[in-house]
Amino acid sequence: MTPLKGNLVFGQSGGPTSVINSSAAGVFLEALDHPDIIPRVFGMRHGIEGILNDELFDISKEERSELELLCGTPSSILGTCRYKLADPAVDDRDYRRILEILKKYDIRYFFYNGGNDSMDTCLKVSRFLRDNDYECRVIGIPKTVDNDLCGTDHCPGFGSAARYVATSISEVWHDTHSYNTPMAVVFECMGRHAGWLAGASALANVIGCGPDLVYLPELPFDTDSMIEDAKHVLKEKNIVLISVSEGIMTDEGKLVAEQLSRRATDAFGHKQLGGVASLLADLLADELDIKVRGIEFSLLQRSAAHCASGIDVDEAVLAGRSGVKAALEGTNGVMIGFKRLQDNPYRCEIVHVPLAETANKEKDVPREWINAEGNGMTQAFIDYALPLIGGEPSQIHENGLPRFARLKKILVK
Amino acid sequence: MTPLKGNLVFGQSGGPTSVINSSAAGVFLEALDHPDIIPRVFGMRHGIEGILNDELFDISKEERSELELLCGTPSSILGTCRYKLADPAVDDRDYRRILEILKKYDIRYFFYNGGNDSMDTCLKVSRFLRDNDYECRVIGIPKTVDNDLCGTDHCPGFGSAARYVATSISEVWHDTHSYNTPMAVVFECMGRHAGWLAGASALANVIGCGPDLVYLPELPFDTDSMIEDAKHVLKEKNIVLISVSEGIMTDEGKLVAEQLSRRATDAFGHKQLGGVASLLADLLADELDIKVRGIEFSLLQRSAAHCASGIDVDEAVLAGRSGVKAALEGTNGVMIGFKRLQDNPYRCEIVHVPLAETANKEKDVPREWINAEGNGMTQAFIDYALPLIGGEPSQIHENGLPRFARLKKILVK
Repeated sequence: MTPLKGNLVFGQSGGPTSVINSSAAGVFLEALDHPDIIPRVFGMRHGIEGILNDELFDISKEERSELELLCGTPSSILGTCRYKLADPAVDDRDYRRILEILKKYDIRYFFYNGGNDSMDTCLKVSRFLRDNDYECRVIGIPKTVDNDLCGTDHCPGFGSAARYVATSISEVWHDTHSYNTPMAVVFECMGRHAGWLAGASALANVIGCGPDLVYLPELPFDTDSMIEDAKHVLKEKNIVLISVSEGIMTDEGKLVAEQLSRRATDAFGHKQLGGVASLLADLLADELDIKVRGIEFSLLQRSAAHCASGIDVDEAVLAGRSGVKAALEGTNGVMIGFKRLQDNPYRCEIVHVPLAETANKEKDVPREWINAEGNGMTQAFIDYALPLIGGEPSQIHENGLPRFARLKKILVK
Repeated sequence: MTPLKGNLVFGQSGGPTSVINSSAAGVFLEALDHPDIIPRVFGMRHGIEGILNDELFDISKEERSELELLCGTPSSILGTCRYKLADPAVDDRDYRRILEILKKYDIRYFFYNGGNDSMDTCLKVSRFLRDNDYECRVIGIPKTVDNDLCGTDHCPGFGSAARYVATSISEVWHDTHSYNTPMAVVFECMGRHAGWLAGASALANVIGCGPDLVYLPELPFDTDSMIEDAKHVLKEKNIVLISVSEGIMTDEGKLVAEQLSRRATDAFGHKQLGGVASLLADLLADELDIKVRGIEFSLLQRSAAHCASGIDVDEAVLAGRSGVKAALEGTNGVMIGFKRLQDNPYRCEIVHVPLAETANKEKDVPREWINAEGNGMTQAFIDYALPLIGGEPSQIHENGLPRFARLKKILVK
């Protein structure tokens, strides 16, 4: 097959993770290895907005050593965006603009790194380019701490966030268990619809220092049941650690955070914005009259590159590199995915997932990976998640602080 | 000098840190190296309560390799307590009980690891034993993430918490700066009276990824000034990161957290317990109509052994070992302290601080280490704090999770 000669553009979209830049490193380093086929490599400034605004970074001008440091640098170095493309059947102006810019820079490789929204963007762009006879290979690179993409065993970004959450809870376990007074701690993990990260907090139970109770949005949440569950644990252990997803809902489909915060309105009538962890902690303090803490992992859990999973970093790089290799071989319109071959020792292989199979879909935690009581995880979940947090973090330090990549980010004139 | 033959007891008190167990390792390993002088080594279960309740762990029964793993294990492995001894002039029952237990186990070396309260305990115990002609060498080992002990350049525990706070903020900096929409993030660090830890968040500015504004309890806090400061930063940078101590106060000496939460009362009339970070974030959302996040480091900052400062771990061990060596040489009634010889390259030496000079006293951040505007730190503070976060963390991992020390904790019969 004759290779398709042309330039490559890569963009980052949606919420950052600890390893989205590792995928950037993978794409950039692999693409720069093929200057005969890919003469120039570009980065979108703030995702698809960088194309719409004609703001592309010239990655060829960056130092290779700094691109390698992207593997210890969290978040989206090129900038991300919350922009959602219209349905091209309704309004195709954005797509025409994208085509115009791709032509302007002779871009024949379009790479986009994100979650299910971003895969939808890839799908729409891919179809529009095909319908307009512009030859360009569109490849989606998966990322999300939420781990909810379909068509892949897991998503880069999840393993590192999972490791951070499990590690942090195991450390706080030691803190709370050093006291001889009763206490409840509620941890809040990201996950609006899927509870993968709260589930991952149960990994700390592998070393006996994990949460006693775990509640995911996959099952309806009942505050009275949680209070009863907590009482049982307290009776036995004196301390109860509880991990919840931010998106846990009542059986009427109402967010627990909203249900509880309706009770709390400030003197000016503003709704208090407290996260569900602190609201549940307050509730436990009221009901059980014990010391409580609500700990929200907030942005920490998706940016803690200092606690990244080595496996996750390596796979994020691999996803980027494999995407470029596949595109050079003619692959188009797919997301790079992972297929698990075995749990122990862990082995995965790269697969190509048609974009239509993953765009705009969400993968929940299977019911059988949650225990019968709905307040903890089963061994099958642990067997699935544990390998994903392995390997040593690769962040480089100088004077005790992370040595992040320093890109010049020179805009193409 | 004839060595004083007898047993040693070590206890941990007050709030845990990432390295309090490193000092335990230092004391235990050094003491176990001198079986001819110190035949038995004990650990107090839950600090001084372990003596009062006659609950001592037999440390000689522990594996040496597990004692070494204490250096990657946060919090107080023996258990801590919040018990405060009475003034012996008013009620000396606890002291008589302590003397009884020391005699029972022929304890001639009394080691206590804690903050200024614990140094007060050491002082009172030391005086009581002297007044009752019981020869026993009492040594205080400093620890506190608050860094507010007098008589020492810094306290073990501070460097690791400082490193965690600075690292985490530098990572969240990348997260927030990946968006092109205005945003404010308020970080809340421990420190009720002294602002060392919030100050340490400014270390992230060394790599250009730190907080724009820092407010310590050493200066009165004014919400209107903070809003003005934030507006200035937002105008220039679009994003503002703010770090505050939990203990910031108004010029009337009222906690800002209390001042703001008075506004927020739930439907049942309960005062909402929200931390000052989320309260200030809500205030900024109201005033500036931008996206906000309040991030409280909570228990994470004092238990994040996975992000410990190597210097801090080494010095915590050194404090323990030096204490034992000093006691064997006849030293009594002192806290082990650090005297800085130079900043760069960093050099400290061990000093002996008379307990009366440090008990119940607090060391604030000097005014000249806070900038003139009262909203940031000066270079002198950075020069002081930066060396304390250096060195690599020493935590061992298995399957991506920390390998914590597993002690048998066998009670002496």
